[in-house]
Amino acid sequence: MTTQQESTQEKSLTTRQVANRFFELAEQGHFNQITTELFSQEARSIEPEQAPFNSVDGLEQIVQKAKEWQDITEETHDVYCTEPIVSGNFFACTMGMDVTVQNQGRIKLDEIAIYEVKDGKIVTEQFFY
Amino acid sequence: MTTQQESTQEKSLTTRQVANRFFELAEQGHFNQITTELFSQEARSIEPEQAPFNSVDGLEQIVQKAKEWQDITEETHDVYCTEPIVSGNFFACTMGMDVTVQNQGRIKLDEIAIYEVKDGKIVTEQFFY
Repeated sequence: MTTQQESTQEKSLTTRQVANRFFELAEQGHFNQITTELFSQEARSIEPEQAPFNSVDGLEQIVQKAKEWQDITEETHDVYCTEPIVSGNFFACTMGMDVTVQNQGRIKLDEIAIYEVKDGKIVTEQFFY
Repeated sequence: MTTQQESTQEKSLTTRQVANRFFELAEQGHFNQITTELFSQEARSIEPEQAPFNSVDGLEQIVQKAKEWQDITEETHDVYCTEPIVSGNFFACTMGMDVTVQNQGRIKLDEIAIYEVKDGKIVTEQFFY
């Protein structure tokens, strides 16, 4: 017998459903939950070539990168994310933050983020700034 | 003496202005004009790795790629472009078309396109599909 819950879990979310859930969590500031709930174990995080952050492979390293960023963030003044645009297996949004960072002072970051979805999970995030 | 027209031409468009003009021309279906008016001579066009189209460097090759595509397109049934999202030097939109192509029949293409702007010109276009 298949319970209602099991059959729901078996069905992969569509890209639009992942984008909607992503936006819902981002608006609540739950960025860690986005990673644990929506990212694939094999997800890649791709930064621009000249970026001060490294591109990394795998959920473990993505979580670690977020942790390191949170450790040096002294105060978050503002975070925003716009409603995603969706096409095929991809969605994109603008994101940004206004933060005070250890040894760097107060900085503003703005970017376009694009996400690739496969089998209901985010497999790639790529940032443009 | 600097005329009004000259002083306007000297000032580079902002990324938002380029995005607005891009969208205006796209809505009118003037995709060739987007290339000639808004692209830098050194622009790059980046396709996904598995794509049937090649990534190319330089305006001349981008124009050539568009021409080759137009040459094999027998009928364009629909083209769309959504209003760009803009952040920093980048803007992105969803785009797509419903076309009948030589030896391929009728196909639908949907993608997210992201554009990088430098000195008022598009220097990179990258497609995700």
